[in-house]
Amino acid sequence: MPAMSSLISQHSGLYTDFYELTMAQGFVLTGKADTHACFDYFFRDNPFKGGYVLFAGLADLLEALEELHFGKEDLEYLREQGFQQKFLDYLRDFRFRGKVYSAREGEVVFPLEPVVRVEGTLLETQLIETLLLNFLNFESLIATKASRVVQAAHGRRVIDFGFRRAQGLAGIQASRAAAIGGVNGTSNVYASFLYNLSPSGTQAHSWIQSFPDELTAFREFAKIYPDRTILLVDTYNTLESGIPNAIVVAKELEQQGHRLVGIRLDSGDLAYLSKRARAMLDTADLHYVKIVASNQLDENIIKSLHDQSAPINVYGVGTSLLTGQDTPALDGVYKLSSYDQKATLKVSENIAKTSLPGVKKVVRYMDPEGLFYGDGILLEDEKATEYIYHPLFPDQKSRVAHCFPENLLFKVMENGKILTHFTVKECAAYAKERLAKMSPEHKRFENPHTYKVGATQKLMDLRSKLIAQYQKP
Amino acid sequence: MPAMSSLISQHSGLYTDFYELTMAQGFVLTGKADTHACFDYFFRDNPFKGGYVLFAGLADLLEALEELHFGKEDLEYLREQGFQQKFLDYLRDFRFRGKVYSAREGEVVFPLEPVVRVEGTLLETQLIETLLLNFLNFESLIATKASRVVQAAHGRRVIDFGFRRAQGLAGIQASRAAAIGGVNGTSNVYASFLYNLSPSGTQAHSWIQSFPDELTAFREFAKIYPDRTILLVDTYNTLESGIPNAIVVAKELEQQGHRLVGIRLDSGDLAYLSKRARAMLDTADLHYVKIVASNQLDENIIKSLHDQSAPINVYGVGTSLLTGQDTPALDGVYKLSSYDQKATLKVSENIAKTSLPGVKKVVRYMDPEGLFYGDGILLEDEKATEYIYHPLFPDQKSRVAHCFPENLLFKVMENGKILTHFTVKECAAYAKERLAKMSPEHKRFENPHTYKVGATQKLMDLRSKLIAQYQKP
Repeated sequence: MPAMSSLISQHSGLYTDFYELTMAQGFVLTGKADTHACFDYFFRDNPFKGGYVLFAGLADLLEALEELHFGKEDLEYLREQGFQQKFLDYLRDFRFRGKVYSAREGEVVFPLEPVVRVEGTLLETQLIETLLLNFLNFESLIATKASRVVQAAHGRRVIDFGFRRAQGLAGIQASRAAAIGGVNGTSNVYASFLYNLSPSGTQAHSWIQSFPDELTAFREFAKIYPDRTILLVDTYNTLESGIPNAIVVAKELEQQGHRLVGIRLDSGDLAYLSKRARAMLDTADLHYVKIVASNQLDENIIKSLHDQSAPINVYGVGTSLLTGQDTPALDGVYKLSSYDQKATLKVSENIAKTSLPGVKKVVRYMDPEGLFYGDGILLEDEKATEYIYHPLFPDQKSRVAHCFPENLLFKVMENGKILTHFTVKECAAYAKERLAKMSPEHKRFENPHTYKVGATQKLMDLRSKLIAQYQKP
Repeated sequence: MPAMSSLISQHSGLYTDFYELTMAQGFVLTGKADTHACFDYFFRDNPFKGGYVLFAGLADLLEALEELHFGKEDLEYLREQGFQQKFLDYLRDFRFRGKVYSAREGEVVFPLEPVVRVEGTLLETQLIETLLLNFLNFESLIATKASRVVQAAHGRRVIDFGFRRAQGLAGIQASRAAAIGGVNGTSNVYASFLYNLSPSGTQAHSWIQSFPDELTAFREFAKIYPDRTILLVDTYNTLESGIPNAIVVAKELEQQGHRLVGIRLDSGDLAYLSKRARAMLDTADLHYVKIVASNQLDENIIKSLHDQSAPINVYGVGTSLLTGQDTPALDGVYKLSSYDQKATLKVSENIAKTSLPGVKKVVRYMDPEGLFYGDGILLEDEKATEYIYHPLFPDQKSRVAHCFPENLLFKVMENGKILTHFTVKECAAYAKERLAKMSPEHKRFENPHTYKVGATQKLMDLRSKLIAQYQKP
C-alpha cells in the first residue's frame, strides 16, 4: 500500500515556507546549522468552542519526514530563487536525522502543552516546521470534529460523505482523520485505498433520473446489489413517491430471499421525514430497513435530531466534518524551546503568547477513578511535582500528588527513523479508549469545563528568569 | 514543470466517491454506460455573505481529467471491494473522452448559472463528479476569498502566509487559487514551484532566538541578505527593542550602500504599532523602509486598518485566506441536465433545489457603460432573449435587449483533450479585468446588491413541463 507521503515525495523538500529556507541558508552561512535545538508543537485554543483536541496526523508526518529530501529539480528551482551553492550542496545531502517525541495519535490533548517535541540540529528542526504544522494542525482539527459528531450520534453509525466539499486534496487526509475520530465509514475511495478505511456508497439522484421512472430505477439498482441496496428516496417526492416505491422494491427483494438495507433521506426536515418514513416502513413490516440521513449535518444538528428521537440509524456527514466548518484551522504553533542546550523562549506583550522554555515533558494525572484529572508540563529532568500552576495565572494551582502519573510523550522517531507503527484502526481504538477517560463536562458542546493544564514551579521560575533577562535594557 | 495532477496521477481513478463506482458498475450492467449525458456544475450560494464567486480550479481539473485512469493496483483494490469482472474490464480501458464547456478561470460567476457543462457518455460524465466538485469548489472558494482580501487592501501588496494553517495538502491548490484572486506573492514554496508563483519570506522568531541578542540576529541576517531583508520586530518588545534595533541595522546597511526593505509586525494592535513604527522610521529618515503586517488578518480587519489609515505597505494573510474561514466550502453541485438527448431535472420539495433541465449556455449581458448587467441562462439552441426571468420568482424579469451579449462558456476540452492553456498569471490578469467590470455595489462586503441571473421563458417553460410530468400520479 502506498503512503500518503508518496503524493508529495517527488518534491518533498519544497513542502515548506520560503522563510524556512532563507533561515536555513542563514544557519549554514553563519555556522549554526548543526547546533542542537529543540522545538515544541502546541496549540493555544480548542477548536469548535470545545474542551479538547484529538491529536492526529502523526503517521503521515513521520512518513514524510523519513523520506524528506531535495531532488535535482528542487535544487535547480532553489538556485533560480537566488540560493547559494554552499547551501544547495548542504541540501543535496540533507535527510532529517532528528528525534521526535510525541503524544500517540488518538490522544486527547489540551492547549499550551507540548504535543510533539522535535530535537536535532537547528537546521533540520527548523526546516520541517511548515510540514509539521500543515499536517498536524489539519488532521488534529478533523479528528476532533469527528469525535464531536460521533459523540452526538450516540452510537448510531456515522459515515463521511465530505470528499466533494473537502478542501481539494485535503479530502484525503481529512477522511483519515475522521476515521481516527470515530467515524465508521467513508465515501472517499482514495483515502480508503491509502489508509485501509471502509468505503461505502450507493446511488445519487442522477441514477434515478437516468431511468424512465423512480420505481424502475430502484428495481434495477436492487437487481445488481440485492444485498446492499440503500435507496435515495427524495428525487421526486419523498413521502408520495420515494418511500412507497422503496417499499415495493423491499417486498420484491424479500420474495427473492434478499433484504433492502435502507433508504436515504437527503433533503427536507429530517426529524419529521424520518418519523414518517419509519412509520411507513414499520406498517409494511419492514422493521429491518434502516434509515440513513444526510444533508448539511453537523454535531449540533445530530444532537438535535437525537433529542427529538428521530429514528435515524446512520448519519451521513459531509462538509462540516471534512472542513471543520465553524473553526477550519487549528492554531498550532512550533516554537524554539532550547538552543545549544540552553532554554529559550519567545516573549510577547501578550503573556498568553509567551512560550514555555526548555526541554519539557508532559505528564497526565489520572484520578483515583481512572479519569483524566489534569496535565502537568515538567522540565525533562524533573521527577515529580506536587502541584501544577496555571501557565497564565500562576495563583491557580492544583494538587496532583494524589493522582497516578502517565507519560504523554513517547519517542516515535530517532535518527530520522520511525519507531512506532499504528494503523488508523488502532489509532481510532485508542482515541475511543482515551475519550472515555475524560469526564462528560470536558466533552460538553456548550461551555465545556476547562481541563487543568499546569506547569511546575521550576518551569515557571525558569520562564520568569528568562523574561527578566530579555527585558533588561 | 510537473502538473499538480501528478500528485494523484498514480491512483487518479480512485479520486472519487464510492457511489460513483457503484453507479458506474450499474450503468455497465444495465447497458446504459455509453448513452449520451450532460451535467451542469453550479453553486447555490455566494460564500462569505458576498455578492459573487471568482471561478478557479479549471486547469488543475482538466489536467487530472486528461490523465484519469485506473491502474492495476486500483483495479485490484476495486475487485476486493466486490466489483465485478465485466466492470473492471471496462475500467481497465477507461479514459475520459468527453467534452467540457466552461467559464474561464478568473471569471466572475453567480449562483444557479452553469459554470461548467460536461458532455459525454453517462459513465464518464458521472464518474468525474467527485473530482470535479472537489477541485472546483475549493479553488473557486479561495480565489473568491483572495479577491476580497485584495479589494480591502486598496492596492497595497498582499502576501499569502497560510501554508502552515492550510488544510494539509489543500495548501498547494489554495496558494494557486489565492494568486488567481490577486494575491501578489506566497510563502508556499511547493505551490510556487508547481505553478510558477512568486515565493517570498525572511525569518521567524526562532532566527532571533538562536542568537545571543536581537541586534546580533538582525545584523547577521542583513549581512547575508543585504538587499532583501525584512526584520521581524516583535520577538521581545516591538517599540522598545525591535524597531530601534531595526533602525540601527538600516543605518548600517545604508553605510554599505544597501537598503533595509522593511520591518514586520506580527502581534499587538497593528493600527497603533504601524503608526508608531512609521513615525520612528520617518524620524530616522528611513521613509523607504516598508511596514509589513501579519497576524490573523482577513478582509474585514484589513478594511478596518485601511479605514484607520494604518501606514501598512504589505499585508501577510494566512489562515483566513487559505481556508476561507467563515465559509470553508463552496456549495457547488453537479446535476444531470440531459440524458439520451432528453432534458431531465431533479425535482425537490424546495424549488430552490430543483435543477434547470436541458443543455444550456450562459450569456453575460454588458450594459452600455461596459459593466456587467445580468446573466442569462439559455437553452443551447436559443439565439437571443429579450427578458430573463428569476429562476425562483419568475415574476421578477429583467429586460436585457439593450445589452451587449457575451458568451460565458467556452469549449475547453474535446475528446478528453485540453483545448486551452492559461497560466496562473493570465488567469489573475483576467480576474482583475473582470472584477473591474462589476459595479462596486455587487462587491460590497455588507449586504451586496444581488446580481441578476435569469432564465429564458423557453427554459422556464421546459422546467414547468417536466415538473408537471414527474408530479403526475
